[in-house]
This record gives sequence, structure tokens and C-alpha cells, in this order.
Amino acid sequence: MEYHDSETAQEVAARVESFMDEQVIPREREALRTGEPVSEAEIAEFWEMAKERNLFAPQMPEEYGGQGLDFQDMLPSFEQVGRSLLGALSIRANAPHEGNMHTLELVGTEAQKEEWLRPLVQGEISSAFSMTEPMGGGGSDPKMLQTTAQKDGDEWVINGHKWWTSDGADADFLLVMARTDLDAHPYEGTSIILVPTDTDGVNVVRNVGHLGGHGITERTGGHAEVKYENVRVPVENTVGEEGAGFRVAQMRLGGGRLTHCMRYSGMAERSLEIAKAYISEREGFGSTLSEKQALRHRIADAETRLHAARATSRHAARELDRSDARIEVAMAKNFTANVTNEIIDLAIQCCGANGIGKDLPLAHFYENVRPFRIVDGADEVHRRSIARWAFDDVDETEIENVLRFDEKRRVDALDE
Amino acid sequence: MEYHDSETAQEVAARVESFMDEQVIPREREALRTGEPVSEAEIAEFWEMAKERNLFAPQMPEEYGGQGLDFQDMLPSFEQVGRSLLGALSIRANAPHEGNMHTLELVGTEAQKEEWLRPLVQGEISSAFSMTEPMGGGGSDPKMLQTTAQKDGDEWVINGHKWWTSDGADADFLLVMARTDLDAHPYEGTSIILVPTDTDGVNVVRNVGHLGGHGITERTGGHAEVKYENVRVPVENTVGEEGAGFRVAQMRLGGGRLTHCMRYSGMAERSLEIAKAYISEREGFGSTLSEKQALRHRIADAETRLHAARATSRHAARELDRSDARIEVAMAKNFTANVTNEIIDLAIQCCGANGIGKDLPLAHFYENVRPFRIVDGADEVHRRSIARWAFDDVDETEIENVLRFDEKRRVDALDE
Amino acid sequence: MEYHDSETAQEVAARVESFMDEQVIPREREALRTGEPVSEAEIAEFWEMAKERNLFAPQMPEEYGGQGLDFQDMLPSFEQVGRSLLGALSIRANAPHEGNMHTLELVGTEAQKEEWLRPLVQGEISSAFSMTEPMGGGGSDPKMLQTTAQKDGDEWVINGHKWWTSDGADADFLLVMARTDLDAHPYEGTSIILVPTDTDGVNVVRNVGHLGGHGITERTGGHAEVKYENVRVPVENTVGEEGAGFRVAQMRLGGGRLTHCMRYSGMAERSLEIAKAYISEREGFGSTLSEKQALRHRIADAETRLHAARATSRHAARELDRSDARIEVAMAKNFTANVTNEIIDLAIQCCGANGIGKDLPLAHFYENVRPFRIVDGADEVHRRSIARWAFDDVDETEIENVLRFDEKRRVDALDE
Amino acid sequence: MEYHDSETAQEVAARVESFMDEQVIPREREALRTGEPVSEAEIAEFWEMAKERNLFAPQMPEEYGGQGLDFQDMLPSFEQVGRSLLGALSIRANAPHEGNMHTLELVGTEAQKEEWLRPLVQGEISSAFSMTEPMGGGGSDPKMLQTTAQKDGDEWVINGHKWWTSDGADADFLLVMARTDLDAHPYEGTSIILVPTDTDGVNVVRNVGHLGGHGITERTGGHAEVKYENVRVPVENTVGEEGAGFRVAQMRLGGGRLTHCMRYSGMAERSLEIAKAYISEREGFGSTLSEKQALRHRIADAETRLHAARATSRHAARELDRSDARIEVAMAKNFTANVTNEIIDLAIQCCGANGIGKDLPLAHFYENVRPFRIVDGADEVHRRSIARWAFDDVDETEIENVLRFDEKRRVDALDE
Repeated sequence: MEYHDSETAQEVAARVESFMDEQVIPREREALRTGEPVSEAEIAEFWEMAKERNLFAPQMPEEYGGQGLDFQDMLPSFEQVGRSLLGALSIRANAPHEGNMHTLELVGTEAQKEEWLRPLVQGEISSAFSMTEPMGGGGSDPKMLQTTAQKDGDEWVINGHKWWTSDGADADFLLVMARTDLDAHPYEGTSIILVPTDTDGVNVVRNVGHLGGHGITERTGGHAEVKYENVRVPVENTVGEEGAGFRVAQMRLGGGRLTHCMRYSGMAERSLEIAKAYISEREGFGSTLSEKQALRHRIADAETRLHAARATSRHAARELDRSDARIEVAMAKNFTANVTNEIIDLAIQCCGANGIGKDLPLAHFYENVRPFRIVDGADEVHRRSIARWAFDDVDETEIENVLRFDEKRRVDALDE
Repeated sequence: MEYHDSETAQEVAARVESFMDEQVIPREREALRTGEPVSEAEIAEFWEMAKERNLFAPQMPEEYGGQGLDFQDMLPSFEQVGRSLLGALSIRANAPHEGNMHTLELVGTEAQKEEWLRPLVQGEISSAFSMTEPMGGGGSDPKMLQTTAQKDGDEWVINGHKWWTSDGADADFLLVMARTDLDAHPYEGTSIILVPTDTDGVNVVRNVGHLGGHGITERTGGHAEVKYENVRVPVENTVGEEGAGFRVAQMRLGGGRLTHCMRYSGMAERSLEIAKAYISEREGFGSTLSEKQALRHRIADAETRLHAARATSRHAARELDRSDARIEVAMAKNFTANVTNEIIDLAIQCCGANGIGKDLPLAHFYENVRPFRIVDGADEVHRRSIARWAFDDVDETEIENVLRFDEKRRVDALDE
Repeated sequence: MEYHDSETAQEVAARVESFMDEQVIPREREALRTGEPVSEAEIAEFWEMAKERNLFAPQMPEEYGGQGLDFQDMLPSFEQVGRSLLGALSIRANAPHEGNMHTLELVGTEAQKEEWLRPLVQGEISSAFSMTEPMGGGGSDPKMLQTTAQKDGDEWVINGHKWWTSDGADADFLLVMARTDLDAHPYEGTSIILVPTDTDGVNVVRNVGHLGGHGITERTGGHAEVKYENVRVPVENTVGEEGAGFRVAQMRLGGGRLTHCMRYSGMAERSLEIAKAYISEREGFGSTLSEKQALRHRIADAETRLHAARATSRHAARELDRSDARIEVAMAKNFTANVTNEIIDLAIQCCGANGIGKDLPLAHFYENVRPFRIVDGADEVHRRSIARWAFDDVDETEIENVLRFDEKRRVDALDE
Repeated sequence: MEYHDSETAQEVAARVESFMDEQVIPREREALRTGEPVSEAEIAEFWEMAKERNLFAPQMPEEYGGQGLDFQDMLPSFEQVGRSLLGALSIRANAPHEGNMHTLELVGTEAQKEEWLRPLVQGEISSAFSMTEPMGGGGSDPKMLQTTAQKDGDEWVINGHKWWTSDGADADFLLVMARTDLDAHPYEGTSIILVPTDTDGVNVVRNVGHLGGHGITERTGGHAEVKYENVRVPVENTVGEEGAGFRVAQMRLGGGRLTHCMRYSGMAERSLEIAKAYISEREGFGSTLSEKQALRHRIADAETRLHAARATSRHAARELDRSDARIEVAMAKNFTANVTNEIIDLAIQCCGANGIGKDLPLAHFYENVRPFRIVDGADEVHRRSIARWAFDDVDETEIENVLRFDEKRRVDALDE
């Protein structure tokens, strides 16, 4: 399908596609077949190859070692990396680091960029975003955030309890959302603070057990539960303006939602590739399954909906490069999250027992894609925003029309 | 929602929107409220106004009195006319005439254009496309077409039986699909022939009763059953090349599918406008329905899916302006047909008894939109094309992967 | 499918099935084919035949000329009548009369039964239930009812404005819901009053235009808008206890919801019969459509869901014969309404152009079944009741579990 | 919800419910919270308790230590055990053993019952059913089975390659499906043979990695890939008649499908209990989530569909106790598999991050329930059977009707 992406975008994506097909997917298949996980050393090798091929970290400026692409232009490359369980990782475009890089690059000080962003892009260090709290803090309702940071001289003193801090157990530093002005509305009184993980009082309690999470790499990440107990860091560690935490997080999350859409669209694409290959070979009752209509037509529908998702994400990326594009991104995210969940589910159904087995990557995909309808704003949260936008705009003439003809009758009835 | 349509497209669409809001929708509301149908004279008045406002027949070249817009540029105007039961009619952009104009303009001879196209655009005469036959002829499988035209000197002698010839009972001429070379494959041996309705042997049997069909205009069109019995017309009445009937029909239908998408998207948009207005006023259990989540969130989802449909149609229009865009159009058509059906259904549900009553236009919309999943290629027919495209492209490496690991096992087992 | 209905139930249903197949459906087909509507005289003939065959008015006691069946036992007969557009009418089991008979039989005085019920069962007179008001009165929220009846001596003086009074324009009497004690909660202060249509001040304004409504009988019923202006009837015309209007209406509606389920299940069954017959004959691309999987498998799913609906309705009927069975009926109604809408939609899709044409009964079915998701309590209203029931019953241990593990963390975090 | 189960059924189910609530669910919660898996010794303790409470192995005759219940009567007990990850295991009603017991009890010889069934029921030994082969053998198309057993004197010599042999790695014996007469149709030439796992030539290659599979018990089972290489067992090890393998398997699978329905319905029920508890406590934007409509109404729909599933399973169990009930069971299985998948998905969505985390059992449920749409006959396989049944029964009169009115037209047209 031709999407009229820019020439640059198409060129980088073509390089990424070759890299996936020649290097990354073959290694993924081997890991699945043998059970041999991919080592840290192998990932470092992928990074070297990615640099040589000029496709490392497409989302980062060239000065930090990336390809300097905006959202529109990184989109087809990110779709490509989504095709493999190792894809995003292999070119350093994987969550949560990609979003953290984006944040530091956007609002970090020069010192922060030198100390943390540069090595982060290079994969020398690792990062985490520590926002979510038990029972809803750090979620869609900002008033529920409970972690605090109080100024004591030139230091922040942070206290709080987070979980679902992705990669938190492995991270060298954490970006922590905390209330920094309890008198202000949280939209004005919350800040993001960079906390080195080895600071006193940072206590990684455990990795929260979760759906899936048994990847094919040695280091699997995990979502950490972290306690912050009188954690002291310099005030200079504030990332972005003091008090602007939610606005910065929104910037991070807007982009993050959309890069998720890109990667998961690629995952759905690959799932269809596998399903089509499988049912083209698998026989039953005298012909291949692909020659019968039932699965074939459902795949046609899946292709149609995936196409709609990709068109919608492109529209959102175009907007996001020039505005905050909240509604466009919310729509793309909800639509893509549901479509990719359905498609991966269909691919599993096409492959039968092989779909739920882990010799193919589909079961991993299935475990990975379910959270996409919850993280970065659950479907319900985005529906709420979209509804607010939709009802902002109720047509006065239609209201008059509805009222006039019904109210009039009511009044008539009462008059008499 | 901003779609980056061209400036011309936006300007014409803005004029169309004003025309709808100021003239057309008010008349529609009056017709619904009073039961007083819109007369032929009133429609002629609308055409005059549309010409004055420079928005008449956007799809036609300026030399024929239109606005000269290609698919991409007519799209937002066609969305606007879809908002009213009278919209397309009021600017002469309504099916089937719009598609018939398109066909004559594309492949008609100069003589045909002068005699038939020019007055057709102006609304001085009326047209019909006579393709479908009982039990599947003229449908998705070209081999089932049974109507024939045999050459006798410089005349065609046409025999056949058609139905679902839209507006056939009112038409001044019919475009008839007939086998003209029985030895050739139908793709090569079928032609379109222009038949004036008053020719001997043309017998309009009846209008086929159908879902809905009780519009708000005096002349309601209807889908005619027509018999052709030794109907003689000059060979010059062939429209397009002899034998190229299916190719011409595809051109007509490709565009027709997409202009349907545009108009029905507008219909869905208006349905949401009405539903939002209604539930913003309608109370139950202590607050308006719009303040409760159930319908509100479903409207958010409807807006999301409609947005995806509109983005997908724009993509298809862009392609259709430079190629036949079969898959792009098939996907846009299937997706939009289903989404608009669902949305209009939801709008009815929002309005309760008022949704199924005909004081609002929703019940009419509901009757109109259901056929969209059947006409111009049923969902199943397009799924068939999309599947063929999808399976053309099965990934060899994935096939090897699937085969290798499964076949190997099978072979191992048999070896022993 | 064997449902273990009682012997009586099966015997009557077998007689009804023969009557449908031998007399009623053939006449329906003729009406559809010729456009010749069924006359009042023909309907009276059907009633005579139904009496001779011992299947007239299954829902009424034998002393009034019916078959004396309770909900469980009338169920399979009502499924049978649902198979034809004329079915319920032909044996006097059609809404709204069937529900009105039920109401009078249940709570009417002996005098009311003699004067109104006996001739109503026999079809000598006609009835209507006048409850719904513009903008929500008489709907799910009882507080919104605005029609009043004030006692003046031994007369009620009724004022109000109703619409969607089914068959109101043809009725000999109306059952009117009115507030009779404005100081009481509407559940305690509303009564049902029998009003002969020829009483002074009863003003049938119009029949509300609505979806479908173009049946195949001479007299099509319609939903009337009715004004009541100082309408005086004797206090003896109260139907059921004074003040008990909502409780009586609930009884009427509980049964009415379920008899709707029965009839619409039969309609869905017939739709599948037609769709299967059609695609078994209709060819495309070298074989019949029934030999291809796409529609065939969707029909299998439709059969499955219809079976689930019929099992659920039987469960509800069993309960309704011994209690008010609110939740059981609400579930059966919502489930069946959605399933039958989907199935009739599918049957139309199977038949293509013939599905939306009115030579087959499917388009009529489609128009008839849509309101089923709105009338007698919209889906949303029943969801509300079901949710209340579901959340009445939240498991204390699970709450403690959820709280314990999350709250504990929260408290821990705050302690430190 | 009252289902009119028999008194015996209700009494046993009440005992099972108490056992779950008092013993099993608390241990499950502890395992989830602490990560401490349940040991073999603890399971043995559960069995002792189950025996004391008279609820051990409800599906087995009393002489083998069970409760002697038929399908109808075991149903509500099996629903109860489905509520916990440990439920079926704790009373020895878990797949695949429960089905294997059923098979041996139904068709085993007295010697087989003494040697294998009695200790199997008691949990002294473990069993597996070895049917599925790579690329479709042993699946829905019997012709694809490739494993063979040839008679050599009074021994079978078995060769073949199986996978997805559940619990195969732990089993003391395997029930192996093999072609025993290559000249016969597989329905007549296939047998089930009992193979002790320690027989020479039985080679458990590995456990196939699969979706989920990380349970909360020490011994997690797994689905084994097993090679049979010249495996010799006495001919007396044939289970059931020689050549009757597929018929016996159908008996096993018919019951197995339905006991799966029961257990998964219970799992869905528990999921709703947890979701309701969670959203009754979880706050957002000023009230609990349960006070807002969006999730609340979706839970109402989930309750409705689960109710329909449970009614349908009861209908199928009633039939299965007196016939093979293929269609009834196929419908119950497909319907329940889809409904329970949707409900568990919804419960996860309700609980947000806690839904995908493994402190609650929902993520485990999600992993467990997905295979239910594939194992014991994928949805597509059952749709195929249901369609065959549905199209066996095409209404001749409807065919004539469809043909008559369409063919006639066609003939008319050709005549002229």
C-alpha cells in the first residue's frame, strides 16, 4: 500500500526493512526455535550494525547519533521495527527509552543532555519513567497523584510509592512525577525529577508479575514497584520547568502513544504475514485453508482495518509535528490499539495450536499487545477526551430543531 | 478535524456547507415536519441557487456547467451534501446521474456529450444505469451476464431482462450492459449501449419495492425492472469502446463507490450532530443523557471510526485521481459502509422513539444506508478482491519458516 | 433443536406451524409478489380458521376463546407466528392487543372484562396502550410522566399529550397512563384508565411517521399522537388498583417483552430459512454461495446465537410464570433484540439486492426488528436494571482482597 | 440466577462453593501475592479435604471414589471450580485427567479400570491424551492422522510424532490415537492405545512453549511433543473397540468440550466478581468507576451474555446425558468460548494495570481462556459442523419460492 510518505521517510524505512529481514527476524526465529535467548552482547552488535546502516535511533537528532526524523518521517521505520520482537530494541527505538530520550531532548537542560541523554541514546545507560501509583495515582485523573517532592535548600526530598515503572529494575536513572506544590492544582504543581537509581532511599521492591513478559532476550525488563523514601537529589535535576510536569508528560505521552501505534501496526502486519503463510500451507478437508473463504475473508477485513489504522496514524503524525494533536492522537491510539488486538487474535486463530505455541512469535505478540489498550491512557480515558471534544461542538441549530418540535408539543399539552 | 484538503477543495466545501445550512436543511426539516414533499420546481430552484453560489455539479468540468473538481477536491463538498436527504439532489451530485455523467464525460463521443451529457448535467433530462439482472447477472461474476446485443447492419438489437435499474422509470435514457461478443470472455465481449427510454421494445415492468424508498420529494425515483425486447438503436450509441463494457463499468463504479463513501460519511456526521443535540437536551434520572457515559462514550467511538473512514476515503481519492486504485477504493468502501451503518444505528438508539420516527431524518438515513453494504459490490465481493491482493503477496520467508519447522518434524516422524 | 417444551406446548405449536405453512405464509408471499394487500375480511377468515384448528389466541383463557396457555407453553407457538408478517395477526396474538388483553384479564373488573376484553379477544373491537409522551414522559424514568387525571365527582378528568400510541388511530378504546395523585411518588400515584376513543376531548392528531410501517395489510395500524383535553370518563374505568399504574404496566411490559422475544425469534428463524434457501440456489464464480464458507459460517454463528436466545427466553418464561422475573426478562429481551437484529441483517446481506427488495419479506422484517431494541425499554434502560442487580451483589471478600493489597501499599507509602 | 438444577446438583455445588471460598481461593490469593507456588503436598491435602466434604471427582462413579454425577448434575459444581486457578485441580476435576477418566470408565476393560482408572482418580498416577500431530494430523480432518500402530503377534508397534499432548511430560500413561487399519477409512481404522510412558521408544522431546503456562503450582504440566519409535505394548491395551478410535475420541471430546464450558463459565463469573469489586473501590474524577455508566453497562452486557452461555450449556448437558448431542455441544462450546474470552478481556480492562498484573488472577485467566477457542475443535471446525446441520434442513418451500420468482423472470427474458 502506497502512503505518500516523504522520500526520506521511505529511504530510511527501506533500510530498516532490510535490516529486519536480513538480521533481526532470523535471530528472532532462532531464539524461538531453540529457546536460546538473545544476549546483551548480541543487542550491542545489532546497534553497531544499525549505525553502519544509518538507521540507528531514527527519532533522535543526528548530533546525538540518531537519524533526525520527525514523527511523520519516522513512522514507516517504526512500523518496520514493530514486525519483530527484537525490532525496536535492535535500533534503539524501544519504549520506554525512546520516549525518555524524546523528553530529555525536548525539555532537558544542556547539562542533562550531556550527562544522561547522550549515553542513553548510545545504550550505555538505561532509563525509566516512574509515574503510575497503586489505586490510580499518576493515571488519567491528575488529582490522585500522591508522590511528593519538597524543596529542602537546593535539594528535592522525594517520598512516594510507584509501580509499573517499566524497566525500573534495570534503569540507571528514573524520571519521577511528583507533586512539588501541594497548594497548586496538580496541572500547575507537579514536576518531573531525574533520580539516579543508586540514590539513597530508592528501593526497587520487585518486578510486578504481569501478562506475558517472558521475552526472548536475556534481560527482560519488567515493570518495577519502587518506593521513594526521603530521596534527595539536586534541584537542577528537575526536567523541564518546575510545575510543568503534567504538560511535559503529555508531550512525552502524545508522542509515545503514536510511536506505539506505529510499532503495533508493524506487529499486526507481521502477524498477518505469518497467518497468510501458515494457512497457505496448512491443509484440511482437501485443500489449503487459504483456498477456503472463512479465514481468507477475515484476513481481508483485517487488512482493511489495519490500512485504516495506518492512514489514521499518518494523519495524527502530520498533526503532531505541528501541534499537540490531542484528539488526533487519542483517536489513532484507540483505533489502532483495538485493531491490532483483533488482528493478532485472528492470526492466532488462523494458526491454531501453532498460534498459541511459542515456536512462532504470535503468542508473544498477543501478550504484548493486550496492554496497549490500557497503557498510555486506557481506551476509556481517551473516549472521555474525545467525547469532551465532540460535545464541545454540539450544533445549535440541531438543538433548536430538537427542542422546538418536542418542547412545543409539551407546552401545547400543558397549556390545555 | 483538519484534513489538509486543498484550498480549492476547502473553498467549495465551505460554500456547499453554507448552502446546506441556509437553504437545504431547513427545507428538509420542513418536509419532515409537515409531510409536504419537495416539488420538482423547488429542486430546480435549488439548482439555480447552486449555480449562483458556484457549487453546482462539483464533479463536472466547467464547460458543462460544473466546478471541475477531481475526486480529491470534490470529497469535502460531497461529504457536505451527504448531511441532508436533499443535499446531493440540490446540487446535482446525486447517484445515479453523477456516475452516469462521469461515464459519458470519460468515454462518450463528442456527439453523445452534446446530445446527452450537456442536458443531463443541467437536469433537463434524466438517466439510468441498467446492469443488474435477476439471479446474479451483471453482478460480481461477469460470466453470469445474460443480456445480449447483436449487430444487425448498423444497429444493435438488444434482448434482456434487468432490474434494480435506479431511476429507470423516470429516465430519458438508459446505459445498458450487454454481451456483444458471445465468443469472447465477458471482460472482452461486453459493451455499454445508450438506449433512449422511448425506443420500441423497452418495457419498464415496475419499480421493485424495496427497503425505505419513501423519500421527501415528489419524484422518488425507485429501482426499475426493465425488459428489453428486440430493442434497436444505432451502433453509434455504444458508450466507450465496443467490448470494453466491463472496463468502463469499473471506472464508473470505482468513482461511484468513493462518492458514495463521501456522501454517506456526511450522512453519518449529520446523524451524530442530531444524536448529540438530542441527548444534550433529553433528560432521564436527574441529568441529561449526554452527561452520562454510556451513550457519550459510544459517540466518542463513533467519531473515532468516522474519522478513520474519512482518512481512508481521502487516501483512496488521492490514488483514484492517478490510477484505478481498486484495492484502495474497495477498502474505503467496505470500511465506510460498515462504519456509517453502525453510526446511523447508534444515532437512532440515542434518540429512542424519536430515532425511529420520521420527524427527524434518522429513520430515512437508516433505510438509505443499509443498501450501501450491498450495492456497487457487496462487502463479500470486495473482501474477495482484497483477499486476492493480500494473498498475492504471501511472504516466501515466512512460508519457508512455517514449512521448515513443521515439515521437518513430519519427515522425522515418518523416517523412523 | 429439541427444547423439552411441555407436550401441550408442542401440540399447539405444531398446529400453529401447519397453519402458518399452509395458509398464512402462502398468502404473505402472494401479497409481496402482487402488491395486493390483505383485507380485513381475509384476516377475519384467518381467525375463523384459527378457531377451527384450536390455536386462536393461545395467550387467553379458554373462557374468552383462547387456548389458555401460560408463558412457557405459548412460547413455541409465538415463535411460529413470528415467522410471517401476518402470523401474529392471523391468530390474534399480535401486539399491542395481546398485551392489552393480558392486562385486562389480569387486573380488570368483571364488568370491564365483559364489556371490553371479550369483544377484544374476538377481534370485534380494537385497543391501544397510551403511555409514551414527547421528551421522555412515560418512559424509563417514571418521574417524567406529565399526563394527569383529576377526580371530579365520580369522573376522571384527563389532560395530557401522548404519542407512539400503537394502533391508536384505529382503537375503540385506549388504556391511558396518568398521574392520579401528584403528591405521591409516581410509582404510587399513577393509574391506568380505560378511555373509549369516541369520548369528547380525545384528539388523534396524526400517525407519527416511522421506520418501515408499510405493511402488507389494508389497515396498517401506525403509532398515534393523541391529545387528551378535559377527557371525562367514570372512575370505574380505572384498570387495576388506583395508584398502581406503574406496577400494572410492569406486569404488562414484562410479558410483552417476552412475547416480543418469542415472535422476533421466529422472525429470525424464518429469515435464516430464506437466506439458506437463497444462497443454496444463487451461484457465483462456479458454485452456489452456500458451498463457499464466508456466508455459510456466518449462518452457523447466527444459528448458534439464535439458539442461545431461544434457550434464554425459555428460561425467562419459566421464571415469569412464577415471579416478576425482571432481570431474567431484561436479559432475554436485550439479548434477543440484538441477536435478531443481527440475524435479519445477515439474511439481507445473504440475499443481496433481493434482501433489500420487497419481493421477499426480509426488508419488512428489517424495518420491524429495529424498534425492538428501543420499545418496551431500550437496551440502555435494561442494562441499567441489570447493572443494578449485578452490583447489588459485589463480593465482599473480593473487595477486601482488592483493598487489602492496594490500600496497604498506599498506606505504606504514606507512612514513610 | 436460578437455573432449576436438580437438588443433588445444587447440594454438591453448594459444598464445592464453600470449599472454594474457604480453602482454595484464599490459597490462590496467597500464591499470587507472594509468588510462592502451591506444592504437590498441598494439592494432596486439598484432595483429602475434598473427600471429607464429599465433593471429590464429581464426574466419577462412587465406586471409584467420585460423586457419581452425570453431566447435568456436575455442571454447577464444575462452574464453581472454574472460579479459581486451583479449583479443578483441588477436587480432581481438571483436564486432561477428567476426560481421560471419563474415557476409561466408559469403554475401558475391567482390567484397565483396575490398573489405571482407579489410581488415576485417586491422583496416584497421571495421564495424557496424545492425539494432535504437527500440520494438522489428529485434528478436525481425520484423514490427516499419520501415527500408525501395526499388529505384530499380540503386540501393537506404534510409530508416530505427536505434540500438544497435555501433561505428557508428567504422565504415567498416554492414550495414543493411531491408524490401526490403513485400508479402512480413518473413522473405521483408528484405535486408542494405552501406552505406559516408561515403555521403550517413548521419547518426550520437550514441552512446547505456549501462551501463558506460568501457573501458580510447582508442577505446571505443559504440552509435550512426543515421538513414538517402535513402541511395543500388548494388544490388550486397546481402549475401547479396535477401529473405534474416532468414535471414542468423539465421546471423550463431547464431554470435554462441555466440561470446559462449565469451568470457563465459572472463570468468567469470578472475573466479573473481581472487576465489580475493583471498580466499586477504584476512584477517578470524583466518584468510583462503578458509579459511572461506561464500564457498568458493559458489565451488564457481560452478565447477560454469560447468562445466555450458562443456559445454553445446561441445555447441552441435558441432551448429552441422553445422546451424543453434537450440535448442541458444538453451539454451547463456540458460544461459551467466545463469551468467556470477551468477559475476561473486559474484566482486565476494568482493572487497568491491575488487570494485566499478576497480583490478581485475571492475567492468568486471560492466558488460559484464549486456547479455549482453538482446542477441542477450533471455532471454525464447529462452525463447519453447525453449518452442515443447518443446511441439511433447507426449506423446500422457500427454495421453490426463491426459484419460482427469479427463475421465471430469467426464463421469460430468454424466451423473448
